[in-house]
Amino acid sequence: MSDLPQYLESVAKTIDRMIDRHFVDKAGELNKASAHLLAAGGKRLRPAVVMLAADAVKPGSSDELLPAALALEVTHTFTLIHDDIMDGDNLRRGVPTVHVKWDMPTGILAGDVLYARAFEHICTVSAKDDAKVRAISLLAKACADICEGQHMDMSFEHRNDVDQYEYMEMVRKKTGVLYAAAAGIGAVLAGGTAVQVKALYQFGLNTGIAFQIQDDLIDLLTPSEKSGKDQASDLREGKQTLIMIKAREKGLDLSKYRRELSPADINAAIKELTDSGVIDEVKKIASDLVADSNRHLSVLAPSKERQLLMDVGEYFVTRSY
Amino acid sequence: MSDLPQYLESVAKTIDRMIDRHFVDKAGELNKASAHLLAAGGKRLRPAVVMLAADAVKPGSSDELLPAALALEVTHTFTLIHDDIMDGDNLRRGVPTVHVKWDMPTGILAGDVLYARAFEHICTVSAKDDAKVRAISLLAKACADICEGQHMDMSFEHRNDVDQYEYMEMVRKKTGVLYAAAAGIGAVLAGGTAVQVKALYQFGLNTGIAFQIQDDLIDLLTPSEKSGKDQASDLREGKQTLIMIKAREKGLDLSKYRRELSPADINAAIKELTDSGVIDEVKKIASDLVADSNRHLSVLAPSKERQLLMDVGEYFVTRSY
Repeated sequence: MSDLPQYLESVAKTIDRMIDRHFVDKAGELNKASAHLLAAGGKRLRPAVVMLAADAVKPGSSDELLPAALALEVTHTFTLIHDDIMDGDNLRRGVPTVHVKWDMPTGILAGDVLYARAFEHICTVSAKDDAKVRAISLLAKACADICEGQHMDMSFEHRNDVDQYEYMEMVRKKTGVLYAAAAGIGAVLAGGTAVQVKALYQFGLNTGIAFQIQDDLIDLLTPSEKSGKDQASDLREGKQTLIMIKAREKGLDLSKYRRELSPADINAAIKELTDSGVIDEVKKIASDLVADSNRHLSVLAPSKERQLLMDVGEYFVTRSY
Repeated sequence: MSDLPQYLESVAKTIDRMIDRHFVDKAGELNKASAHLLAAGGKRLRPAVVMLAADAVKPGSSDELLPAALALEVTHTFTLIHDDIMDGDNLRRGVPTVHVKWDMPTGILAGDVLYARAFEHICTVSAKDDAKVRAISLLAKACADICEGQHMDMSFEHRNDVDQYEYMEMVRKKTGVLYAAAAGIGAVLAGGTAVQVKALYQFGLNTGIAFQIQDDLIDLLTPSEKSGKDQASDLREGKQTLIMIKAREKGLDLSKYRRELSPADINAAIKELTDSGVIDEVKKIASDLVADSNRHLSVLAPSKERQLLMDVGEYFVTRSY
């Protein structure tokens, strides 16, 4: 049995405490709006990847790098706040989104404040200055890529001919690069060699893409009671996911599911996609990505943390919510 | 006659070329949206302050720091793009604003991309790594402050009892800190001492605040033909400017001007505010700030660049558009 759940829980507690100290306990309405989603929970997976990457490169180094781990969670949250405005979403993590609880301008500013705080926190890490500059550069590049990924994702809404290549490029930017940056930043701040940093960056990129593909599978396969989300919403909205793209390649017509779906409808869709082999193919793409990311980790000496990183990849593609 | 106009023109040309290379010539719709306002002109005052501060600390150092000068202009432009969404403004620098030419989500993302690029560019400067980390930290802190300043400014819209202290705090954050960061970043990257960096930061802060106060005066006093803006729009909208606050202190009722204003109405308002001494008092606050910022510069050896910095302050409070 892996130690991963316990490890993730311990990182989450540490990050939660930092969030309380640096965000929740601050006065002022804009600070409250900035802290709102950050304090609403979350698995703190990106901070865990920062810390595991650091310890895998240099055992015991992660304690010094907590502000960088926090910076990754803060960056992730800023993108969620802005995405929620763009997508018009009302609920996230069981709480009203920032622009709904406050208003659109406050939502934009709350995200912008977190954006700044991410860079402020990463500047405070105890590490060599050249490593800090490289880490900051990685984070900035990831932020620009995430914007492009979100822009691609929105442009897909008006299309029904997105191919696998475009989908993978969108997911690479929207989700992959921030996991890549998390692992790369942990490695670079811990004093990793160029080879180690690159390997961990690639590990993060692949597992991040696999994470998103699994998210698409969960949307279809996991009942709402378990996921807390609306089951099969992607299907109903005709979203260009890998499932949709693979189905189209096989000549399946999923447009009939672009309407309110009963549990029986959803089961019919799942059966159709399973029987045609779409589900298995999509699962295989995700697990191949994780297998490939594990190969990248072979440049690292065996360690508890290297194993935990592999467990993270495995967890990303086996979780059902 | 000061060399300042010629100097500013030369910096603007250099920055314009960098903008063409790094932003305008990039493919993709989101890059086009990000480049739109950046390429629409502008005086490039913040880059000039970065470079003058650097050269005032270490002659000839500014050539190496062009990416940092660019980063300040990019940061300023990101804030304008997001402000235009929040304020619902349709025109800026004679072109449609980003969210109008594209849409609101693209406006948010275009600003977010520039935000990232600012940090990316400052990371590429040729300077000592510890100086780069301090410069990045200054920029990040400025970004967070600007958000708070904009939030305060928006909150003033629902009030008619803003006092001078609150106004100055808002302007300090919304406009002052980015000039402060510009001067501080130039100084720190050029290898300035702690005393020099602090002095230049304070110089930038005071002149930045004075710049905004002068903007309020221009809104009232400069005819539209000259300013390219709608004359007396602050008065019409009941905006809490220093002019409004000083008038209230003197018992003047400006609420009668919260309506469509004819040229005769505007002249009447100007006469009332001039006769009561409001205009002179506001002008004095701005020029006192500039005088104070010049005192900060006395820690620097006399140089052409130190004089040009003083000329910048003088220009900020004497310009009529």
